[in-house]
Amino acid sequence: MNYREESLKKHAEWRGKIETVCRVPADSRDALSLAYTPGVAEPCLAIRDDIEKSFSLTRRWNTVPVITDGTAVLGLGDIGPEAGMPVMEGKCALFKAYGGVDAYPLCIKSKDTDEIIKTVKLLSGSFGGINLEDISAPRCFEIETRLKEELDIPVFHDDQHGTAIVMTAALINALKLAGKKKERIKLVINGAGAAGIAIAKFLLSFGVKDVTVCDLKGIICEGENWLNGAQTEIAKLTNKARLRGSLKDAMKGADVLIGVSGPHCVTAEMVSAMADKPILFTCANPVPEIEPQDAKKAGAFIVGTGSSAHPNQINNVLVFPGLFRGALDVRANTVNAEMMSAAAKGIADCVAEDELSVDYILPYAYDKSAHERVAKAVAEAAVKSGVSKLK
Amino acid sequence: MNYREESLKKHAEWRGKIETVCRVPADSRDALSLAYTPGVAEPCLAIRDDIEKSFSLTRRWNTVPVITDGTAVLGLGDIGPEAGMPVMEGKCALFKAYGGVDAYPLCIKSKDTDEIIKTVKLLSGSFGGINLEDISAPRCFEIETRLKEELDIPVFHDDQHGTAIVMTAALINALKLAGKKKERIKLVINGAGAAGIAIAKFLLSFGVKDVTVCDLKGIICEGENWLNGAQTEIAKLTNKARLRGSLKDAMKGADVLIGVSGPHCVTAEMVSAMADKPILFTCANPVPEIEPQDAKKAGAFIVGTGSSAHPNQINNVLVFPGLFRGALDVRANTVNAEMMSAAAKGIADCVAEDELSVDYILPYAYDKSAHERVAKAVAEAAVKSGVSKLK
Repeated sequence: MNYREESLKKHAEWRGKIETVCRVPADSRDALSLAYTPGVAEPCLAIRDDIEKSFSLTRRWNTVPVITDGTAVLGLGDIGPEAGMPVMEGKCALFKAYGGVDAYPLCIKSKDTDEIIKTVKLLSGSFGGINLEDISAPRCFEIETRLKEELDIPVFHDDQHGTAIVMTAALINALKLAGKKKERIKLVINGAGAAGIAIAKFLLSFGVKDVTVCDLKGIICEGENWLNGAQTEIAKLTNKARLRGSLKDAMKGADVLIGVSGPHCVTAEMVSAMADKPILFTCANPVPEIEPQDAKKAGAFIVGTGSSAHPNQINNVLVFPGLFRGALDVRANTVNAEMMSAAAKGIADCVAEDELSVDYILPYAYDKSAHERVAKAVAEAAVKSGVSKLK
Repeated sequence: MNYREESLKKHAEWRGKIETVCRVPADSRDALSLAYTPGVAEPCLAIRDDIEKSFSLTRRWNTVPVITDGTAVLGLGDIGPEAGMPVMEGKCALFKAYGGVDAYPLCIKSKDTDEIIKTVKLLSGSFGGINLEDISAPRCFEIETRLKEELDIPVFHDDQHGTAIVMTAALINALKLAGKKKERIKLVINGAGAAGIAIAKFLLSFGVKDVTVCDLKGIICEGENWLNGAQTEIAKLTNKARLRGSLKDAMKGADVLIGVSGPHCVTAEMVSAMADKPILFTCANPVPEIEPQDAKKAGAFIVGTGSSAHPNQINNVLVFPGLFRGALDVRANTVNAEMMSAAAKGIADCVAEDELSVDYILPYAYDKSAHERVAKAVAEAAVKSGVSKLK
């Protein structure tokens, strides 16, 4: 199937992938008096006296907007807020289908960090959580950081942490098959944007010791004069050998390559120079860093991509529905590292040891039981780490 | 039934009067590839090249947020954005039940006019129209005026225009029964807030010649030193006799009293002093300007109130679902006077001549055929007045 052509047809036919429905009777005078005026005055006053009750008397507890400024949509770049809508709507549809979350798209016509933060803050009283989406780096870092500080509901930038979580899940299972320990591997990340930086940080906190990040200009090393703010920060935590040079240099002897960069920047030769049983998660979209069959020919042990056309799709669709389901269920006031680790382990655990193979390291995104497992793990981690506001 | 007590129970049981649902398949790899990545890139690019396509390739065409700052909620006043949620959600539920519109609440944590305008503008690319709700006067005037100027989708402040439209519909039918002509009646409005001012303007444009507006301080007359901006403006258009004094003075010999003010400010004596067959729309909520039975005893010919407990409920629930349905159906780029007049006439026409009685001047709010009639009338008026952007 030509997905893109067919998808355009389908979108014209659907005219919207989500819809709001009415959950209450509205077919009589009494029904109106209860759902609307005059009865509605009473829940209003109850919330006025205790704002926390907005989580039990309205849909706030289950509502998450998918917020973008349209600057980093898929691999399409800065296409504008309206043009980002099909992606955001798609995400909302999956939020409901896999997580039971009521989500709707909010596309902000501004690229100004302060304006975006302010807009989200002003609206936050209507929501149970905030999903930030497809906002370009480095603005996305500040936007997420400040919103997390200032709001008491979960704030999650999916491109950073959703990607980091699902990569970690894939890595957990790939290392099992390769018989390697996370503490002893040499891991290279190509791409130092929002996803790459977040993956590096998350893997370090997860226990991987030797991480090196590369960008178009080469290996990120403390002291290089071309690093931006986020890269300078990650340079301090990674590449302890102070390696300088290109991706090719970094990949020599590496156990794992994680690609969140661009098309065909990895060659067969670079794969052949990796350690024994090399693991490649080449997730550039729509064209990966190296075609899976070429990587395999060059000796790759396990290959994962962002695409559903190959085995081992590494897609953050596996993360956000269950993560928010779990967070909302226990009225978590943030998304913390414990919840994100629980999500990664929860996803990895969905593939039973006896099912695990080089072509099956992650559950399918459309497997609802996987999302339920993630939700449960995240909710438990939120309660255990003390961020649930349920009494 | 004790509506308020029962309503609180119901709200705790419902935990939300609306919900977002997924309209597309999400149960296979192919389904995901069409609704989400990679297929979704194609509708994104189509919208990037022609923003108008966001109305045909996403749910934008049918989506209307109910936006408030929580400053003038029902008769409860400034209870804050979160506390306004049950009303906004109720409105969203009715938007769907009666108009098929996908609506969701956005409660803004700011009372600053510029901030509210900016927030709505920044988000407007996600919506097919904007419903402003329960924002206190005089800020609501500027907010609506500036948004109407700056956006090319319908913007509608329901407390002003919804009320004006349904009052006009009620007046059309009441005058039929009283055998009076709109051009020759003397009409008094008590309450010079958002609703009262909007009703006065709308009735003047509708053809009523003799309108006098009163506020707590008395009759609004050009030259009084206590008038605010909106009142100064309306003083120029009303009270041509330059009458000064109290509501009691204004009501002497009046054919119609429209009350959008406060509880029990009209006495039996004031009703008795009105013209023959006096018409009273006493819509203060929850307690009317005069109890219907007292007004009737004092000689009122027709009484309408805001409450469902009495005959002739004058409720803007009759307006907004059909008005937006009609506007969205033809991709109107505004709500103009022609569309609002069409809505008023459409509502009045729902009551057939042979059904019309002093206790039945308006259709019931839960009568879906009434909303369909309004939608049709509004859509026709939009096309005829040249504000439809459909090709």
